[in-house]
Amino acid sequence: MKLATLKSIDSRDGELLVVSRDNTRAVKATDIAPHLRGALENWSVTHGPLQELSARLNREQLPNAFAVQLENLHSPMPRTFQWADGSAFIHHIKLVRMARGAPLPETLETVPLMYQGGGDDFLPPLADIPQLDFSHGTDFEGEVGVILLDTPMGVSSTEALNHIALFVLINDVSLRGLIPEELAQGFGFFQSKPSSAFGPFAITADELGENLREGRIHLPLRVGLNGEAFGSANAGAMHFHFGQLIAHAARTRNLKAGTIIGSGTVSNDSPISGSSCIVERRMIEKITEGTMKTPFMKVGDVVKMEMIDQEGRDLFGKIHQRVIQA
Amino acid sequence: MKLATLKSIDSRDGELLVVSRDNTRAVKATDIAPHLRGALENWSVTHGPLQELSARLNREQLPNAFAVQLENLHSPMPRTFQWADGSAFIHHIKLVRMARGAPLPETLETVPLMYQGGGDDFLPPLADIPQLDFSHGTDFEGEVGVILLDTPMGVSSTEALNHIALFVLINDVSLRGLIPEELAQGFGFFQSKPSSAFGPFAITADELGENLREGRIHLPLRVGLNGEAFGSANAGAMHFHFGQLIAHAARTRNLKAGTIIGSGTVSNDSPISGSSCIVERRMIEKITEGTMKTPFMKVGDVVKMEMIDQEGRDLFGKIHQRVIQA
Repeated sequence: MKLATLKSIDSRDGELLVVSRDNTRAVKATDIAPHLRGALENWSVTHGPLQELSARLNREQLPNAFAVQLENLHSPMPRTFQWADGSAFIHHIKLVRMARGAPLPETLETVPLMYQGGGDDFLPPLADIPQLDFSHGTDFEGEVGVILLDTPMGVSSTEALNHIALFVLINDVSLRGLIPEELAQGFGFFQSKPSSAFGPFAITADELGENLREGRIHLPLRVGLNGEAFGSANAGAMHFHFGQLIAHAARTRNLKAGTIIGSGTVSNDSPISGSSCIVERRMIEKITEGTMKTPFMKVGDVVKMEMIDQEGRDLFGKIHQRVIQA
Repeated sequence: MKLATLKSIDSRDGELLVVSRDNTRAVKATDIAPHLRGALENWSVTHGPLQELSARLNREQLPNAFAVQLENLHSPMPRTFQWADGSAFIHHIKLVRMARGAPLPETLETVPLMYQGGGDDFLPPLADIPQLDFSHGTDFEGEVGVILLDTPMGVSSTEALNHIALFVLINDVSLRGLIPEELAQGFGFFQSKPSSAFGPFAITADELGENLREGRIHLPLRVGLNGEAFGSANAGAMHFHFGQLIAHAARTRNLKAGTIIGSGTVSNDSPISGSSCIVERRMIEKITEGTMKTPFMKVGDVVKMEMIDQEGRDLFGKIHQRVIQA
C-alpha cells in the first residue's frame, strides 16, 4: 500500500490519499482518516479499510480516482510530533568526522548516534530549499526512514520492528557551516538542521517485498545533483537496523504514533557507490586528490533522490528540490 | 486569560478549557477551538472569543462552569510539534558544566544554548515520573517558557516578542547519568531528556502584569522537594530574554503555532535563592562543603513547582510529580 498527502489550505496536516502501485492514480481516503497521522493513531481501525481501498484502486477504475500531480503533494507527514534521526551508516560517520576533524565516538559500533529533530514544518518533496546565507554550507542527506505506530518505552530491538507502519525516503537538509560551532556548544544540532523533505509516498512493507530484510531496505538510494548522478549507495548497509534505532529512541520515553525514525545518510564503503551527501564526496576528494572540489549547494542547484527496485518500480516517488535565496 | 487542557480519551490533544483567574472554576471552550493547539493555529479568530469567555467566567456564574479538579488536567499542550529548550541562565550553565567537568562554551554570553526537545508525549502536571534505572540520576529542572503563534524564519529578537501567545511553567526532567555519554557522542541530548511536564495553566501576558518586563518574567520560581523548600530563584535573571531565544530558534527555520520555547533552568547567583534542579545544589555542596550530599531523585521522591505573584496569586498552578519505578 502507498499513502500520500494532498496539500490543503484547510489543514496543516493535509488530506490522506491512497496511491496506486505505479504512482499514477490516487483516491482520497479522508472518509477513513482525515490525514496520515490520524490514520496511524487509529491504525487498528483504519488499516483494513485503507488496504481495501488500495486493492480496489490497483484493480479497478474507481470513479473518484484522479491522476497524481506531484506538485500538489506534501510530504506524507507535513509535520510530526517526533522526528528522530539516527546515523546507522558507519562509513558516513567516519567520513564526516574526518571532514570536520572530530574524533569518532568510542561507542561507534555499539550505541547508535541519534539526534532529536524538529518536526513542525517539513518541506514538500518538490519544495525549494530556502538558503539564508551561502556560508552556511547547504547540503542534502539522502536517507530512508520508518513511521511508527505507538511504541512503548523500553521496547526491544526485535519487538520494535513490529511497530513500523510505513517506510519513507528523506532529504535531511544540513547546514554544514553551522555544525562545528553548534556541536562545540555541546547541545547538538539545532540551527544546522532546518526543515527536511520526504519522498511523496509512504509505503507498507509488502511494497518492499524481499528487499526488506533484517530491518533494512536492501536497495540503492539514487541521488542526483544538477542532473548528474551523485550516488547510489545501498541502504542495506545500515550497521544498526531500524529495530535497533527504534529501541535506542524508546529507551527512556514512549514514542507516539506518527514518530519518524531516520536511518542517517546512506553510505557504502565502496568507491563505485558515490555519496548521498556533498560533505562525504568532499572528504573522499580530499583523501584521493588532496583537495575538496565539490562546493556545497548554491542558489539554483537541484538535488534529486529516488529508490527504484529491481523491476523498475519507483517506490517512494521523487524528492526534487532547488536551493533558492530565502 | 488562563487556558488549560482537560484530559480526554477521545483526543490526544485533550479539550480546551478557560480557567478563572483564581484557578477554581473552568468552562469548556471547545466551541471556539477543540484544543489549545487548534486555538493557537487560528488565534486571530479564536483569541477574541476566548478572552470574552474568560471575562464572563471571571465576572459571572456561568451555567456550564465547573470546579477545577487538577487530576483531570493535562499539560496545557499534551504534545507539540516543536519544543526547543534554551539555557538562558548563565549561573546554571556554569554550575552544571563544572559538575560534569565540561568546559564553558566560548560563546556563553553571546549565543544562547538551545536543545531540540521531543514533544510527542508530555506528562500531565500531577503525573508520576517513570524511572527505569536509579543510576540514570533523575533530576528536575524548573523553568518558565512561552508558547508561540506562527513565527517566520529570520525574525528579530524584538519582533519575536510579538509572536508570544502564552506563558507556561515547565519541569524539564533530566537523566543526569546519561548526559555525559550522550554529549560525548556529539549529537546532543536524546535519552537524557525524557518527557517534560507543565504547570496546568497557560496564561496571557496580562496575567503577569508588571512582572513581565523586557521579555522576562520577574518572579521567583518556587521549587520544593519532598515537602521542603529547595529553591526560589527569580526567573527575571535570564541573560537572554525570550525574544532572543525565539530569534535563535528561528534563525534557519519557521516556528509553527504551538511551538514551546523554554528558558532553561531558573538560576540565580545568590546563596539565598536555592536551586531549581538537584545537580546545581550538588555542585554548590561540593564547592562549599567539599562533597555532593543531595542524591538525585529516587522512587517515592516528590518535586513541586509553582510561581506565586506579589498578591499571592498562583499563576500557573502546581507541578507536583512523584518518581515511580517504570
